[in-house]
Amino acid sequence: MAIVIIRQDGKSEEWKSAIQELAPDTNVYVHGDDFPKEEVSMALVWKHPENSLNQYPELKLVSSMGAGVDFILEDPGLPEQVAISRVVDPLLAEDMSEFVLALVLGHIKNLNTYHGDHRRRWWQPIAYTRIKDTSVGIMGLGQLGAKVALDLKGAGFQVSGWSRSSKDIPGITTYAGQEGLSDFLNDTNVLVCLLPLTPETEGMLDEKFFEKVEEGTYLINVARGGHLVENDLLMAIENGKISGASLDVFQQEPLGVNHPFWEHDNILITPHVASVSDMDSVASLLLENYRRLTDGDALRFEVSRSRGY
Amino acid sequence: MAIVIIRQDGKSEEWKSAIQELAPDTNVYVHGDDFPKEEVSMALVWKHPENSLNQYPELKLVSSMGAGVDFILEDPGLPEQVAISRVVDPLLAEDMSEFVLALVLGHIKNLNTYHGDHRRRWWQPIAYTRIKDTSVGIMGLGQLGAKVALDLKGAGFQVSGWSRSSKDIPGITTYAGQEGLSDFLNDTNVLVCLLPLTPETEGMLDEKFFEKVEEGTYLINVARGGHLVENDLLMAIENGKISGASLDVFQQEPLGVNHPFWEHDNILITPHVASVSDMDSVASLLLENYRRLTDGDALRFEVSRSRGY
Repeated sequence: MAIVIIRQDGKSEEWKSAIQELAPDTNVYVHGDDFPKEEVSMALVWKHPENSLNQYPELKLVSSMGAGVDFILEDPGLPEQVAISRVVDPLLAEDMSEFVLALVLGHIKNLNTYHGDHRRRWWQPIAYTRIKDTSVGIMGLGQLGAKVALDLKGAGFQVSGWSRSSKDIPGITTYAGQEGLSDFLNDTNVLVCLLPLTPETEGMLDEKFFEKVEEGTYLINVARGGHLVENDLLMAIENGKISGASLDVFQQEPLGVNHPFWEHDNILITPHVASVSDMDSVASLLLENYRRLTDGDALRFEVSRSRGY
Repeated sequence: MAIVIIRQDGKSEEWKSAIQELAPDTNVYVHGDDFPKEEVSMALVWKHPENSLNQYPELKLVSSMGAGVDFILEDPGLPEQVAISRVVDPLLAEDMSEFVLALVLGHIKNLNTYHGDHRRRWWQPIAYTRIKDTSVGIMGLGQLGAKVALDLKGAGFQVSGWSRSSKDIPGITTYAGQEGLSDFLNDTNVLVCLLPLTPETEGMLDEKFFEKVEEGTYLINVARGGHLVENDLLMAIENGKISGASLDVFQQEPLGVNHPFWEHDNILITPHVASVSDMDSVASLLLENYRRLTDGDALRFEVSRSRGY
């Protein structure tokens, strides 16, 4: 039994050390090194190359090293029978929640506008909005979305939530499915996308969607770049449906220097930093599932191929 | 018995209407109009002209129309025997608390830096700091400071406080006086100035003060421009003692277009908007003290001339 780490960002060795520090007797290999492939029962992957997984004949479990599994499900070389899991790190949800709170507050206190005014040496007071007068709508009520919704509610915001299938979260008004979308959007000044990326949600934030939002809605996308049709956002800003946006994720990352988003003062661009895996915390969660796999126990955070999360 | 409103920002009539809407039988005059001066027992002032107060022979009470009274105490024409009061509007403290939270979160999530990177089209992820790992030090533990300290504590920050005389706030480590200042500053990553402006605190944030702070402390001044020696801040940023600042108040407002602060990317300038009086809420508090003055009851929010707040 062994673990293989497959990623293309040069951080594999660092992860190997983090895992072996926690469990020195575990066999951990790095994809591309020379080692007996048939030993491997679990692959830890982050944006792995296509057709890397099928080099491991005894593979039982592929685990994302983060919360997202879209890149695993999109891999045409994903072996049929392997289980898929992901990491639900409480710190990731905590960090996401803090970041979203920072973005929402920055928006209602006009800090983004004051940054632009600074550049022009303008002194121009603008009326702020109070927390209690701000309705935040959270799209996606999974581990991250539910945490963010509850924390914003706790901070005093009016919070509602939308998800594909109906969810019940204490104190949060929830809407579900296409039929619930218009009511949800009517209720929302600030829209936070925390959806999983699936074939159903890919490109969901498009022209048709923006037609349904309240005039002047502020958009925060901290999920995946694939949720947003970027040109449609530019049009929605142009016609005033969307007043501005904080975007942490993009169709292509890093965002190219010629991308039109850079020219927009009312788009705050952050370089995919809302919530970054804490290596030790993630390593211990990955090891727990490796132990469960080895012992034949039920896996944690297993992903349904059909649902996509 | 009558009230006179003295301010120079063209908003006197608007205030008069707000007060008379709440109490239609109250005599309210605007300074500069023609009316019997000896009727006036209470003056409502905001940055009034010098030697305006001594035109009212029967004046008993001067009330600031905001939280600050520095401009009243600095008026050489302030009659000797009149009482002084101010407005302690719970909404002002609430708004201040929200604004400070927005600034602290923006700082620890590097949003100010990302705004600068946006201008340069730079994609440069920076490690964020978590709320629980951030020590915020609040200078000034009056109505505003105490509220901000408790709210930040509630949000999960490590919070300590400093004031001239010792204060006890549940859950907050407090320091007092010159002898407590170094320990307070050792404990602080983010420093929030919410001091009253008095002869003792004027220019307190100066070169000597910045020598005592921890390397890389972030400064937030939402009190008065007079607390900060502006050139000394520039030096402290230059030598790294201060990593950056959010300034809402300045020695001179509006900040002149040639002021060196505009050139600094790591100074976020906001145009004195942290907390703006809500007219109805303030008007009802002012009327309450007018009723108390008229009935001979104890005043609320009376200010000590010797303490300056």
